Amino acid sequence: MSKPLVGIIMGSDSDLPVMKAAAQMCEEFGIEYEVTIVSAHRTPKRLVKYSESAEKRGLRVIIAGAGGAAHLPGMVASLTPLPVIGVPVKGSSLEGMDSLLSIVQMPGGVPVATVAINGAKNAGILAAQILGVKSKDTRKKIKEYKEKMLDEVQTKIDKLEDVKYEQYLKTM
Amino acid sequence: MSKPLVGIIMGSDSDLPVMKAAAQMCEEFGIEYEVTIVSAHRTPKRLVKYSESAEKRGLRVIIAGAGGAAHLPGMVASLTPLPVIGVPVKGSSLEGMDSLLSIVQMPGGVPVATVAINGAKNAGILAAQILGVKSKDTRKKIKEYKEKMLDEVQTKIDKLEDVKYEQYLKTM
Amino acid sequence: MSKPLVGIIMGSDSDLPVMKAAAQMCEEFGIEYEVTIVSAHRTPKRLVKYSESAEKRGLRVIIAGAGGAAHLPGMVASLTPLPVIGVPVKGSSLEGMDSLLSIVQMPGGVPVATVAINGAKNAGILAAQILGVKSKDTRKKIKEYKEKMLDEVQTKIDKLEDVKYEQYLKTM
Amino acid sequence: MSKPLVGIIMGSDSDLPVMKAAAQMCEEFGIEYEVTIVSAHRTPKRLVKYSESAEKRGLRVIIAGAGGAAHLPGMVASLTPLPVIGVPVKGSSLEGMDSLLSIVQMPGGVPVATVAINGAKNAGILAAQILGVKSKDTRKKIKEYKEKMLDEVQTKIDKLEDVKYEQYLKTM
Amino acid sequence: MSKPLVGIIMGSDSDLPVMKAAAQMCEEFGIEYEVTIVSAHRTPKRLVKYSESAEKRGLRVIIAGAGGAAHLPGMVASLTPLPVIGVPVKGSSLEGMDSLLSIVQMPGGVPVATVAINGAKNAGILAAQILGVKSKDTRKKIKEYKEKMLDEVQTKIDKLEDVKYEQYLKTM
Amino acid sequence: MSKPLVGIIMGSDSDLPVMKAAAQMCEEFGIEYEVTIVSAHRTPKRLVKYSESAEKRGLRVIIAGAGGAAHLPGMVASLTPLPVIGVPVKGSSLEGMDSLLSIVQMPGGVPVATVAINGAKNAGILAAQILGVKSKDTRKKIKEYKEKMLDEVQTKIDKLEDVKYEQYLKTM
Amino acid sequence: MSKPLVGIIMGSDSDLPVMKAAAQMCEEFGIEYEVTIVSAHRTPKRLVKYSESAEKRGLRVIIAGAGGAAHLPGMVASLTPLPVIGVPVKGSSLEGMDSLLSIVQMPGGVPVATVAINGAKNAGILAAQILGVKSKDTRKKIKEYKEKMLDEVQTKIDKLEDVKYEQYLKTM
Amino acid sequence: MSKPLVGIIMGSDSDLPVMKAAAQMCEEFGIEYEVTIVSAHRTPKRLVKYSESAEKRGLRVIIAGAGGAAHLPGMVASLTPLPVIGVPVKGSSLEGMDSLLSIVQMPGGVPVATVAINGAKNAGILAAQILGVKSKDTRKKIKEYKEKMLDEVQTKIDKLEDVKYEQYLKTM
Repeated sequence: MSKPLVGIIMGSDSDLPVMKAAAQMCEEFGIEYEVTIVSAHRTPKRLVKYSESAEKRGLRVIIAGAGGAAHLPGMVASLTPLPVIGVPVKGSSLEGMDSLLSIVQMPGGVPVATVAINGAKNAGILAAQILGVKSKDTRKKIKEYKEKMLDEVQTKIDKLEDVKYEQYLKTM
Repeated sequence: MSKPLVGIIMGSDSDLPVMKAAAQMCEEFGIEYEVTIVSAHRTPKRLVKYSESAEKRGLRVIIAGAGGAAHLPGMVASLTPLPVIGVPVKGSSLEGMDSLLSIVQMPGGVPVATVAINGAKNAGILAAQILGVKSKDTRKKIKEYKEKMLDEVQTKIDKLEDVKYEQYLKTM
Repeated sequence: MSKPLVGIIMGSDSDLPVMKAAAQMCEEFGIEYEVTIVSAHRTPKRLVKYSESAEKRGLRVIIAGAGGAAHLPGMVASLTPLPVIGVPVKGSSLEGMDSLLSIVQMPGGVPVATVAINGAKNAGILAAQILGVKSKDTRKKIKEYKEKMLDEVQTKIDKLEDVKYEQYLKTM
Repeated sequence: MSKPLVGIIMGSDSDLPVMKAAAQMCEEFGIEYEVTIVSAHRTPKRLVKYSESAEKRGLRVIIAGAGGAAHLPGMVASLTPLPVIGVPVKGSSLEGMDSLLSIVQMPGGVPVATVAINGAKNAGILAAQILGVKSKDTRKKIKEYKEKMLDEVQTKIDKLEDVKYEQYLKTM
Repeated sequence: MSKPLVGIIMGSDSDLPVMKAAAQMCEEFGIEYEVTIVSAHRTPKRLVKYSESAEKRGLRVIIAGAGGAAHLPGMVASLTPLPVIGVPVKGSSLEGMDSLLSIVQMPGGVPVATVAINGAKNAGILAAQILGVKSKDTRKKIKEYKEKMLDEVQTKIDKLEDVKYEQYLKTM
Repeated sequence: MSKPLVGIIMGSDSDLPVMKAAAQMCEEFGIEYEVTIVSAHRTPKRLVKYSESAEKRGLRVIIAGAGGAAHLPGMVASLTPLPVIGVPVKGSSLEGMDSLLSIVQMPGGVPVATVAINGAKNAGILAAQILGVKSKDTRKKIKEYKEKMLDEVQTKIDKLEDVKYEQYLKTM
Repeated sequence: MSKPLVGIIMGSDSDLPVMKAAAQMCEEFGIEYEVTIVSAHRTPKRLVKYSESAEKRGLRVIIAGAGGAAHLPGMVASLTPLPVIGVPVKGSSLEGMDSLLSIVQMPGGVPVATVAINGAKNAGILAAQILGVKSKDTRKKIKEYKEKMLDEVQTKIDKLEDVKYEQYLKTM
Repeated sequence: MSKPLVGIIMGSDSDLPVMKAAAQMCEEFGIEYEVTIVSAHRTPKRLVKYSESAEKRGLRVIIAGAGGAAHLPGMVASLTPLPVIGVPVKGSSLEGMDSLLSIVQMPGGVPVATVAINGAKNAGILAAQILGVKSKDTRKKIKEYKEKMLDEVQTKIDKLEDVKYEQYLKTM
């Protein structure tokens, strides 16, 4: 097995039900990844070590998910030259607005590539697109994935054309 | 001169016009302080070093101000057993809501004592109140400060009673 | 039994399921506390009496939780020189934003150390950190607590390393 | 001069430029009023005294304006059986949303009749409407005021009919 | 039976589960009231008729509840010299923020006395306070109600003092 | 001159600087229009009369602009079978969010076709698109307008291609 | 069967449970319609084709519903001279605010007639009102629909008059 | 001159004062780029053409900035396998919240790497980080840039240590 290119990290294992979608997309695109927990607030030393060693260990993209005052993605970004994708995880209040703003509103000099609230699936796809900069094969897989999405929609379009919408609703 | 008890730090010198009020309140209460810049995102190593050495260097309270995705207060709090006061600094968009949520919505285990947006003055007073836990003298100064505030309001009340409000407005 | 150092108060007994976490953290750190109800709006006289007598009774920190137009923490803060920690309690609308703003946006002169929405656990830890200013022993306990948190995360990290994430999710 | 029926209070003299409109409307309706400063946070004792004596002193309505974590209207309401009108004053951040929520979101049992952000003019009119419950004459004046508003609009309507809108804009 | 003094209206019968609390408070204070449906958008003519006849029919206060783009309270206020209390009813999205802003942000000249989201209980109490301007007896009842609230809180305070909070929680 | 097809109304002449853009777009598309003031809150009778007579007077679309608790568009819509376009006008607080929600969140049965905050220009274009349902000529003009927009963008694209962006910025 | 005049499209079949109400209202008014899926992001080519052919195929109004970053309505509007009605569909976070702002805040030149969050019913009625510009018969049906709504409310008013509100609540 | 790797596009030339910072960062890192205008709403065909040809023309990253209902970044992302970076541009209302949500809340399948409101500088840096996946030299430049930032902060730290903060403020 080759070394992982994508590091998927999260602030707590309670984020895993959301973040697993990022791993699933890496699998979809045949990209090696690792999944682990790095808490900005409870394991700050680990945060520094993980971020600083990432490039040397062969990682090329880091996906970081966190909720509330979500500092993980931004802090990782401050410690590595690699692109960091941030996933705001919706918590028990404020509808995810706190995580979103904590991740996206980074100051000049240290970007975090932020995706939608709970958008771990898109974080995985974005990681593939970034790796696609280097790999024509990955770009091809992304195009195929877009084709597949299109086909899935087309199947639904065809079905909705065949049966009236009332019928369609019953079969959902 | 004795060693500082309060560390006043900020993410950027552009926060200084807001954060100076914290220093002024320390002076008001006769508390030794230091003022410096610690950027969570541009000087992450300094952040770790500053936070980890704070207690040993004699600091007892840290006041940290930052804007936007304001990670400084929370990250300091993760690296020190000292109480950390967070000051959300209003930036050029979102009316300070991004800084407020990034600072206050900390996960269980790592509190930040958050004050109002641009509330550096109150951060200074809160630091004094915290130090007052140890020092009866400081508690006395806080009580005197409250009396002074009351007197200032009373002066205005008296003036408003003397002149009608239209006149008062002209002299503001 | 020694006298309580921390007063944990709330606007209504309906806040108790949230606020109990503050009491639990005081127990965690071996700090004497008291728990009672003080309603800013339904028992304003009690509010004045409680706040004004707090210091003399030996309290050193007050934790106040309230929801909606949450005036309790700020009003207590106006009546005591002690540091006051405010806990915004999420109500049945607005996702807790009303309580948060009612507590944190205090005017210059009267700070409230605000923690996250429903963040009573952190209020308890912050109270310990504040008392730690006076007590090296408490600071040591906070450091141990941080170590314990780190260990708990490490256990999860190890487990996630052992089993793949799909397996981990099944055991959650 | 008869005793004031309406007490117009505010947290700070910096609210006076907004709150004066409440006084002006009382004058418009020939209602005796008083204007003074009562700070919930800096003069809490005065708050209690003012609120508790209000009814006996002959006041029938209290208009209270405040900004930020605006506790004044709600605290007055907790201490008097009189109706309390709250005016959220817009501060330097959050567009007045903090004052609005701090005033309007009162718990069951203690209402505050909240008007628009900076809506002191309407607070004055509402006070007149409330006093109109007792006084047919005041109700008549309110009806006349509504007629006057209507006439003012009609004058503008007529003017806009006479000149095309481009011309109207030039004369604004 | 005497004629109603308070008209309680709502935009739809789906608001009744919220608005009933206003009626219950009128009963608490022994105030005659009527309850009916007036939809600003589906029965605009009825809105005009109801509002214009309200004063003559003997009503002295109108309580109007509505959700979403809640125009009922403001439109009634434009058509009557009586004080109008607005109750923002929380709908299926936006957490009641839409109703709140639609009711409270009235333009100069036409106030609506706005209470909290779903705050129909407080609307009833506020109506009583307004009628109390005329009736010393009603003011007395309001004071008794405040005493009763205080007693209820005191009972809980006593209970919480007797049993530890863990026990209290089990009996809630 | 033929009778107006589009009625452009606003709650106050202070909305005219925003609303004039609707009139200008009607002129652009050669559509007869009228401009007047109809205040939901200060001229409610006029509101009823204007709305009820609109269809008979030959109007086919109504554009209504208002700020704050903006009830005008919704109330007109409740009184006419014609399509009503609502323009939220930004006021002095809340960034136009109050007007937007007051206009767009209409209950089932009474739609308002809402455009962007201060989007009077688009209200005019939308009115033309609606009238285009009947008139092929108007549809043609809309297509030409789209072409013209495209040409204007193309001119800028060409200029940006000719000069580097630094130069372009200097000539803006 | 005549050709459809109204195209009802949505970004995903998961929007169908909301969007079906638009179809039901078209049926209510006897207007031919079509229902299909057009995803701005997964079928962008279909979006272009559908929008560009809409007018030629005989459509006169397009209703487009989408959630989250809801680009469908605005993109269709950029590609057709027909009026486009946008329905913001509430997603799993942010209470529908993201869809609302993504649809309503269109730039000058390209309007989208936005209705309430999940307001597909009103989208159907608005489409009928727009077609009513051409058809007196449709305008008549809209007036009848308004009468029907009024009758339904009247039935509830009568019932509420007959039984007291407590009884009414039991029969809901 | 080699072919551009980064395409910097914006919805309008009014976005150029914000978006120029992306170009400046590309220059900083020695990355070839192009700057042009692509309006999702006014030039939808150009949008399709630009996006579909981007990969073939040699582009590897696209930076797209837009304000209000900002559809440009998401629509480009739907039409290319390349990673797309979205820059929310602050408009004249809502503090940039509309652009932010319109860009970041993309549905599953089509990510946009969103940066802060007006965060064009970070978009440029993120583009470099993405290209760094392929180029060790670019990664080196990013590391050097981080060093430079650190040095700049250090200079300020040193200055603040030399002069007291009052003096520092005077020289800003």
